[in-house]
Amino acid sequence: MRAEASATDAVVQDEGSARLIDGAAVARGVRARVAEEVARLKAEHGLTPGLSVVLVGDDPASAVYVRNKEKQSVEAGMRGETIRMPATTTQEELLAVVDRLNADERVHGILVQMPLPKQIEPAAVIRGIRPDKDVDAFHPANVGKLLIGERDGFAPCTPAGVMVLLEEAGVPLKGAEVVVVGRSNIVGKPMAALLMQPGVDATVTVCHSRTRDLAAHTRRADVLIAAIGRGRFVTADMVKPGAVVIDVGMNRIDDPTTKTGTRLVGDVDFDAVRSVASAITPVPGGVGPMTIAMLLANTVRAARQLAGVADAGAR
Amino acid sequence: MRAEASATDAVVQDEGSARLIDGAAVARGVRARVAEEVARLKAEHGLTPGLSVVLVGDDPASAVYVRNKEKQSVEAGMRGETIRMPATTTQEELLAVVDRLNADERVHGILVQMPLPKQIEPAAVIRGIRPDKDVDAFHPANVGKLLIGERDGFAPCTPAGVMVLLEEAGVPLKGAEVVVVGRSNIVGKPMAALLMQPGVDATVTVCHSRTRDLAAHTRRADVLIAAIGRGRFVTADMVKPGAVVIDVGMNRIDDPTTKTGTRLVGDVDFDAVRSVASAITPVPGGVGPMTIAMLLANTVRAARQLAGVADAGAR
Repeated sequence: MRAEASATDAVVQDEGSARLIDGAAVARGVRARVAEEVARLKAEHGLTPGLSVVLVGDDPASAVYVRNKEKQSVEAGMRGETIRMPATTTQEELLAVVDRLNADERVHGILVQMPLPKQIEPAAVIRGIRPDKDVDAFHPANVGKLLIGERDGFAPCTPAGVMVLLEEAGVPLKGAEVVVVGRSNIVGKPMAALLMQPGVDATVTVCHSRTRDLAAHTRRADVLIAAIGRGRFVTADMVKPGAVVIDVGMNRIDDPTTKTGTRLVGDVDFDAVRSVASAITPVPGGVGPMTIAMLLANTVRAARQLAGVADAGAR
Repeated sequence: MRAEASATDAVVQDEGSARLIDGAAVARGVRARVAEEVARLKAEHGLTPGLSVVLVGDDPASAVYVRNKEKQSVEAGMRGETIRMPATTTQEELLAVVDRLNADERVHGILVQMPLPKQIEPAAVIRGIRPDKDVDAFHPANVGKLLIGERDGFAPCTPAGVMVLLEEAGVPLKGAEVVVVGRSNIVGKPMAALLMQPGVDATVTVCHSRTRDLAAHTRRADVLIAAIGRGRFVTADMVKPGAVVIDVGMNRIDDPTTKTGTRLVGDVDFDAVRSVASAITPVPGGVGPMTIAMLLANTVRAARQLAGVADAGAR
C-alpha cells in the first residue's frame, strides 16, 4: 500500500492514513549534497574525504552494512576503504590498525563495525579512535559534546538521521512533546540529547523497559520515537491521534510467505499505527537509509575540520 | 519552623508537612566517609589525595566557594591548595597553570572556579584539564561517560549529590516518574543522564523555558527536581500531592528584614510546596552542602584511580 515518492518529496500522503516520511528519498538528498561538497573540496582544496571501515570477523549482516558504507562513500566521490580482519584478531591487533588510521592523513573518518568478536572489548576500541575522526560518534568525548551542545563534535548517525528526517518532513519540535522509547547508547540516549538542546527545544521523555505505564507516556507524544528493538511493539492504542511516529527498529521476523522465510519489521505496528498517526516512517525505507547518509556527512565534516577548510554552507 | 536534624538522620518530619531532606546532615556523612577513606589511603598506601582549585579574579561569591572547598578538603585530611590568579590573567596563562597541575603527581583533582573573566573561554579551559583529574566532571569525555554509563568517569558534583540525597532519603527511583526542570550543562542535563541509566531506571522528562504547559509535567512527577535558577518558581499547584521535591536553586532576593538586606531562596516556593510534597530539600541546607562533599568524594576516587589503588568499598 506504500505510495512511491519522488526523490524530492520527503512525505507522501494516502487518503485516510498517515503521511509517509520517505527516508530513502531524504537520504538520497543528503548523499547528493555530500557528493556536491566532496566535489567542491576536491576542486577548491585538493581534499578527498576518506572513510575507513574496519570489519572484524564474518558476521553476514555486518558484511552487508560495510559493503554499503564503502559503496556509498565511493559513489559520493570519497575515498572509501574497508579493512577486513579475521575473527581471531586480538584487541591489540585491532588497536594497532586503529592507530595507523588515526595517523593516516588520507583518512578522515574511522568506523569499526560492531559487533566485535568476544575477545575484543568494544569500549576500548571506541576510545582508541581519535575523537576528531570518530564519525560514528560513540567516543565519550563526542557523546559529551553532544549533551553539552558543543558543535565541533559528531552526532551518532542514526539519531542525527532522525533529526534530518523530522526537519525535512516539517515536523515542529520547539515545545513539542517528544517521547523516546529506548535508552541505548546508539539511539535512545543521544536522540534525547539532540532533542533537548536549546534551539531544538523539545520537551523530551526517555522511556524504557522499566517505565511504569508506558502507554500513558507514548500517548502524550506529539513525536514518538521507537527504538526498543522489539518488533511491532508500539501498537495503535499507544499513539495519540495525529502524532508523528519515527520507527528506528529493524527486527527480522519469520514470514513463510516470503522467499527468504523472514521479513524486516520495525518497532511499530505499521499498518495499525498508520491509521492513527499524522506521519510515520516505514521500515524498511525510513530511518535505515539515513544512517549511512549521515555517516558520509560526518566524514565530509571531519575532512573539513581536520584540513581547516570552512564550511561552504552545505549540510 | 524547620526542625533540627541529628547528624545521622537524613529526614525529619513535622506534623502535617513534608519530611525535610537534610542535606547538611547527609553531606556530613559523606565527608566523614571521605575522611575515613583518606586516612586509609594514607596509612595503607602512603597516598594523600590532593585537590587544587584555581581561582581567577576577585568575584566575592567565588572566593567564598573556593575557601570552603579548600577548608573542607583539608578537614578531610586531603592536600588542599588554592591557586589565585589576577582578573587580567590570559587564557594561555591559565592553561599553563592547568598543564602544570595535570603533570603534578600530588594533584589528583583539578577544579577551575567558574565564572571566568571574559577574555578566557571556559570550554577551552575545561578541555585543558586531564579527564582523569577533572573532578568537577565538565570535560566532554566525562560527560560522555556519564551518558553512556561508563563507570570510570566522574559525575558533576551537584547532580551526583542529588542522587546521594535521594538514596539516603530512601526515595525509590526504579520506574519512578522524575521531572527535571532546567537543562543546564551543570545540573539539568547530567541529572537526567544519571537518572535514566539502567540500574537507576527512572523515567525522566527534561523540561525547560520552552516547555508547553510545564505544570502538566511537574504534576506528573513522583520526584521533581527544580534547577531553573528562578526564585520560588515552583508553586504548590505545580506539585503532585506526595511528591518528593529537590530544590537545586540558589537565588538571592531582596529582603529588608534581614541584616544583609538579601535572602537566599530556592527555585521552589518552600513554605507552600512543603504542605503538598511528602519530602523536600530546604534552601539553604539541602542540595548546596552536597556539592563540595561530592567534590571531595570525586577527588578521593581520582586519587585511587590515578594510583591504581582498589576501592575498599567506601563511597
